[in-house]
This record gives sequence, structure tokens and C-alpha cells, in this order.
Amino acid sequence: MSDSCLFCQLVKGGEHLRKADGFVAIADINPQAEVHVLVVPERHIDSFREIADFPAEEAKRMLDFIAETAKELGVRDYKVVCNVGESAGQTIFHLHWHILAGPETRRALPALALADVEGPA
Amino acid sequence: MSDSCLFCQLVKGGEHLRKADGFVAIADINPQAEVHVLVVPERHIDSFREIADFPAEEAKRMLDFIAETAKELGVRDYKVVCNVGESAGQTIFHLHWHILAGPETRRALPALALADVEGPA
Repeated sequence: MSDSCLFCQLVKGGEHLRKADGFVAIADINPQAEVHVLVVPERHIDSFREIADFPAEEAKRMLDFIAETAKELGVRDYKVVCNVGESAGQTIFHLHWHILAGPETRRALPALALADVEGPA
Repeated sequence: MSDSCLFCQLVKGGEHLRKADGFVAIADINPQAEVHVLVVPERHIDSFREIADFPAEEAKRMLDFIAETAKELGVRDYKVVCNVGESAGQTIFHLHWHILAGPETRRALPALALADVEGPA
């Protein structure tokens, strides 16, 4: 937990769509798709590069939480995206996952560049 | 394991960039970025929707395997993408993850639509 980390603060006190077992789901403030939700773990690691620091049970719960969140949102088809590092579009250095969906994610987003898939600026 | 599943067969006998602990990394046959590698688990589930079927240790090893593969490929910044369902771009119904990277993933792929990020057709 870092006082200067926006997502550490958001996990503690932000507007949560869901919260369970050390994970929260929040709406992306700059949505790139009809549904654009972030899944953020309470545990602070800077990026996916340090994923080995996650204990097995927590790694599993994180993946389950993502799938459960999509299901609760009522989206059947969606993309799960993690941007690793600044040049890959990561803007907040606290691991997080994007859930992106639309009525037809594949065709509905023809103009959405990979470059645009990133967290809140 | 399904006889009719391309990825079940690829895990057993394909061209592997890496193989360990029930996971393989293979080059995407239709690369959408300078580096485009797929991580495929030996365990067959149709999509990320069924991720709850993964035991904790295996879920952890899968995430670790993705990060280790990127590191071995020598890419520091990259995107990890899972397409869930046909309308989100999933073409092979055996869970798999895309690792996408380039010299500058963010700026190097301005024309690459999310729609194009999918497994081999």
C-alpha cells in the first residue's frame, strides 16, 4: 500500500461496482468501449511484471473475480487486457485489468486502436 | 483434452517457443505486432468464462508463465490480451492469452484495431 498510489486509494475508498476478497471493479473514467471496467487488486504491485509476488490463492481469485465481474455486468463476450509498461499504454503503476465489451466487441470497435486501451490518464 | 481441438493438439505436438508446467508458448501464425505470442494451457477449457475450473496453483503458474515468457522474449513492455467469445475476437475455443509487443507497443500500433487482436484463424 502506497500513499501516493491512486489505485491504492481507490481500492480503499473509491466508487466500486463490485468489491470482494481483496479486489474491486471500477468504471474506467475514460471508457474506450460501451463497457469498460477496471479490476484492481488491493495488493500493490507496479505491473504485471511482478505477478510472481501474488500467492496462488490470490492469483486464482483475481482471475475468478474478472470473470465474475463480466458475468455480473451481463456481458458474455469481452476482452481482458493488461497493459504492461508505459510504452504499452500503462498509465497507473498498480496492476490492473481492463474488461472491454460492447454489443459486438469485435465489430463495434473497428476504430479503437490497441494504443487507446489504457487506464484513466 | 479434445481430439478435435487444434490447441489441444498443438500443446502436445506443435512448435513451441517455451514449454513448462502444463503451458506452452507458440508464435501466432498471423502476427498483429512485432512480437505476437500465444500462451496456451494444456488444460482445455473453452474460454475465460470457465476460468473457475482452474485450480489455484495452475492459475498462478499460468500468469507466471506469461510474465516469464515475455521476459525470455526480451520484451519489457507488452500487452496481455484474452479474447472471450466469438464477438470479442476469439476464434479458437481453447483458452489462450496473447502477448503483444513492439519497440513501442503504444505508438507502433496506431492502426491496429482491437478487432484484429485474435488468435490464428
